[in-house]
Amino acid sequence: MAAVSASMLPLLFFARASGLVVAALVLTWALAFKSSFLPHSSSQEDLIYAVLHPLLMVIGFIIISGEAILVHRWLPGSRNLKKSVHLCLQGLALSSGIFGIWTKFHGIDGVVANFYSLHSWMGLICVSLFGAQWMMGFLSFWHRAEVRMTRVRVLPWHIFLGLYTYGLAVATAETGLLEKLTFLQTRRNVYKSCPESMVVNSLGLGLALLSGFVIFAAVSPKSHVPVNKPKCLSS
Amino acid sequence: MAAVSASMLPLLFFARASGLVVAALVLTWALAFKSSFLPHSSSQEDLIYAVLHPLLMVIGFIIISGEAILVHRWLPGSRNLKKSVHLCLQGLALSSGIFGIWTKFHGIDGVVANFYSLHSWMGLICVSLFGAQWMMGFLSFWHRAEVRMTRVRVLPWHIFLGLYTYGLAVATAETGLLEKLTFLQTRRNVYKSCPESMVVNSLGLGLALLSGFVIFAAVSPKSHVPVNKPKCLSS
Repeated sequence: MAAVSASMLPLLFFARASGLVVAALVLTWALAFKSSFLPHSSSQEDLIYAVLHPLLMVIGFIIISGEAILVHRWLPGSRNLKKSVHLCLQGLALSSGIFGIWTKFHGIDGVVANFYSLHSWMGLICVSLFGAQWMMGFLSFWHRAEVRMTRVRVLPWHIFLGLYTYGLAVATAETGLLEKLTFLQTRRNVYKSCPESMVVNSLGLGLALLSGFVIFAAVSPKSHVPVNKPKCLSS
Repeated sequence: MAAVSASMLPLLFFARASGLVVAALVLTWALAFKSSFLPHSSSQEDLIYAVLHPLLMVIGFIIISGEAILVHRWLPGSRNLKKSVHLCLQGLALSSGIFGIWTKFHGIDGVVANFYSLHSWMGLICVSLFGAQWMMGFLSFWHRAEVRMTRVRVLPWHIFLGLYTYGLAVATAETGLLEKLTFLQTRRNVYKSCPESMVVNSLGLGLALLSGFVIFAAVSPKSHVPVNKPKCLSS
């Protein structure tokens, strides 16, 4: 068990601060500009599903999976405890992601419409990669002794694929924001300089910043290493 | 001088193959669907600038900077040779990025219109980060002896920021594709299932794949390491 290193503290702080700002911005968008989410049918149930999509994907999928990535960097206690918390948080993020995608399949356009959009394809690939990773983590957690060598061999792949999936999730969210905003600007007379556009643009920038802090915290060396031997991220 | 390790070969191959596919797709889009790039004025000069933007950003900025990242993984020869080629290629990518942004400032909407779009903000941040990184690399290349300790200390930051900027450039391109496609679908009756939409969607997926291969090649250990001691990407 090791204390959080001093160099990690500012990174963890900025990751959490940008996560809070992102959560506040997506909540503001979903609650203060509800009319932008009104679908064709304008039924109350469809509106709820439309509003739930960005909330589940940003807060449930991206922010919680970022928190799961950070667990290995701050949680004191045994390795098994860290792995259990990581697995539980990623499970929660995965459920949010699946439910978030389902809210789109539920709509009047159905499943097929989602096969013609880059945002949907990226989202489906993201959640599939995430699901496969989670399943592997889950299985290896319950079969520790048997597959120790396999786990050690697979670990760098698991970390790279996990961070790649996280980055892809953020890129997918950015495409979703641009798709929605361009639609609103061309069809519903939402101006480029109006408060809603500003909230969505700030949300996009906040997400880019959040992903930077989370990924940097994840790949930074845990403890102090001598300056002439940087172990990670060396060329 | 070391030969390219066997584990690096497939990664380099797939990075180049996806880079070629991406280049072919963006060329197809720009040349076969020219009418989609027609701006308000429909002058020949404005059309050329509009078509140049995706070409410069995807081929000039993203693909060439990816190639510059990969230089450290395959180019035989001294460290200085690798650094010089890396610096030259990144300089070429930076010039393309600046020229690519200028094509948008040149248009009828001018500079101000670009301050209300998430895609523009992300692009400006990307090219600014890229420029700052390149300038630091350039200065440290010409003042080797004086700042050796500083360079060693800064290297992990340079690599992380470089890869982050590269990922952000890809995410920015994805938002640009979605912005353009949503505009075409809502204003110019381009259907979601038509060939142009398919080309743009495939371009977006190709970019996501390319970035995965390039970043994984960059962070992979150069040579074979014992399986029980993974040096990079270990938790």
